[in-house]
Amino acid sequence: MRIAVDAVGGDHGVVVVVAGAVAGARRHGVGLVLTGPEEAVRAALVGTDAAGVEVVVRDAPETIGMDEHPAQAVRRKPRSSIGVALEAVKAGEAGAMVSAGNSGAAMAAALLVLGRIPGIDRPAIAAPLPSRRGRTLVLDLGAVTDPKPHHLVQFARMGTVYAREVLGVAAPTVGLLANGEEATKGNLLVQETHPLLAAAEGIDFRGNVEGKDIPNGVVDVVVTDGFTGNVALKVAEGVAGFVGETIRAEITGSPLRKLAAALLRPAFRAARAKLDYAETGGAALLGVSGVVVIAHGRSNETAIANAVGVAVRGARGDVAAEIAAALRSPASGLGQ
Amino acid sequence: MRIAVDAVGGDHGVVVVVAGAVAGARRHGVGLVLTGPEEAVRAALVGTDAAGVEVVVRDAPETIGMDEHPAQAVRRKPRSSIGVALEAVKAGEAGAMVSAGNSGAAMAAALLVLGRIPGIDRPAIAAPLPSRRGRTLVLDLGAVTDPKPHHLVQFARMGTVYAREVLGVAAPTVGLLANGEEATKGNLLVQETHPLLAAAEGIDFRGNVEGKDIPNGVVDVVVTDGFTGNVALKVAEGVAGFVGETIRAEITGSPLRKLAAALLRPAFRAARAKLDYAETGGAALLGVSGVVVIAHGRSNETAIANAVGVAVRGARGDVAAEIAAALRSPASGLGQ
Repeated sequence: MRIAVDAVGGDHGVVVVVAGAVAGARRHGVGLVLTGPEEAVRAALVGTDAAGVEVVVRDAPETIGMDEHPAQAVRRKPRSSIGVALEAVKAGEAGAMVSAGNSGAAMAAALLVLGRIPGIDRPAIAAPLPSRRGRTLVLDLGAVTDPKPHHLVQFARMGTVYAREVLGVAAPTVGLLANGEEATKGNLLVQETHPLLAAAEGIDFRGNVEGKDIPNGVVDVVVTDGFTGNVALKVAEGVAGFVGETIRAEITGSPLRKLAAALLRPAFRAARAKLDYAETGGAALLGVSGVVVIAHGRSNETAIANAVGVAVRGARGDVAAEIAAALRSPASGLGQ
Repeated sequence: MRIAVDAVGGDHGVVVVVAGAVAGARRHGVGLVLTGPEEAVRAALVGTDAAGVEVVVRDAPETIGMDEHPAQAVRRKPRSSIGVALEAVKAGEAGAMVSAGNSGAAMAAALLVLGRIPGIDRPAIAAPLPSRRGRTLVLDLGAVTDPKPHHLVQFARMGTVYAREVLGVAAPTVGLLANGEEATKGNLLVQETHPLLAAAEGIDFRGNVEGKDIPNGVVDVVVTDGFTGNVALKVAEGVAGFVGETIRAEITGSPLRKLAAALLRPAFRAARAKLDYAETGGAALLGVSGVVVIAHGRSNETAIANAVGVAVRGARGDVAAEIAAALRSPASGLGQ
């Protein structure tokens, strides 16, 4: 299998992305289709030890900047690194696609090139966030800011399939993010969605969950609108960084403390690995006919390598086909 | 000045609340009006050293449980500890009121007994959350789950007054919580609210802010709907606790690490004080004609003492009168 990687997307440039992609491909035993201006990609490959990794370079002379309008840029630049990578997925040349570039453009291009899975009205962005019990899959993280109740039911179905096929949860449980656990809590959207999820077959719905239940890991999948999900994700990232820095500042506040802190360095490193959002390796765009992984713009080499791992698991789990199958099954209540 | 305290509200019972209230009153040089079943309150006072603190006990034979329906309970139990405390504020006997009981009942009772400030359609819950620059005031945290754009403008005005009068910020800046910093980002509510805030005089609006900007302290006041605000608050609380526990588990993972960790105990205690949400001492209900502080149900003695401190600052800053004045001033654009 090959994974298509947008080699020029991301804040750190082509050298970091290519190095991360090669490392990820080697770890997972897959090949790569690297897309971007051919000369730049080949130059980056020269400085990378790609021995044992099958690499194809596909020239994509156009790049979409982080500040460009997504839909417009996608239409104006059919030969962008994002677009060419998605064409490789569509043609079956690659099993999945990874981009750390303009995430709005990746979404727009994926819809244009791959199309939606029948029965899905709106694709959603899903990512597993660190929790006391491992990971909590949260979706949507920003694709659909004002969904309808039936969109959230579709998100719950897609999240269930993703948790099972990619995260290895045998029987995923689902919660609806709200401002309280009681069934009467929630804004209008949540109050209308709650009975639909409770009645939906094929979804193991456990009712409303609160923001704290994401780090607590009370359910496997947390469903929410893309506005609230994006705020929750960024609050979690921001607070995790702030807490870590506050502790670091205090424990290095005196020479004796610095000595003790030095002894604990491996412990802090281990804690950071459990808490670092970059380690999760990127979010999946669910609902398009193919596997699309959206990595953080800030992704370093490790994060890109992890994103390739997420792409491999998505492709091997055949996530798009499994979502389509879940929607076709009589238990799905499709069309409700 | 006296502060009215609902002596029987909260998970820890009357002894803890009374001890915390007395400690807070002593620290801030104020008297207390304690409300609750008289015998229980007097019994708690017997075990508390209240020397030097003027304490009045007001019998309130009825209590509202944490699981009772707020509005119904308030109507059915006019002589509840919450209701009697609010009556003391209305009568001018107390300058502010604190309750760690049923927060929905405290809101409903405050509306019933104190009424709304003219020009405010919906009261909001505001609390300062820990940030890199001290505190970020966030509102609404759960009072209004589906506000209209003009409600958010009122929240921005109330937050500005509260940050100035109670938190001591000379010229508070305001941000609108969204899924991106660009003015085009947001759900429909945010997109409609953005131009209203940009045009409003008397509000130093700095545009959209993201979830991470709450811990980063980019602005002094973050305005959002009560659904999103509640999720953000609980994600922040949950992640802060999770990060702290993960670090603690790693640094006590071996005997040598335990020794080093013991040396760092004061440092961790200092970090926790900066990060502990209970230390903030409770949220303010803004928009009612009086100062009402809603403390966490889990509040321990320290948290209740801090809540009394918040109540004292609110009363001394004359928050309700200042909000009313801000709404009356020609710059407020009242009625827009």
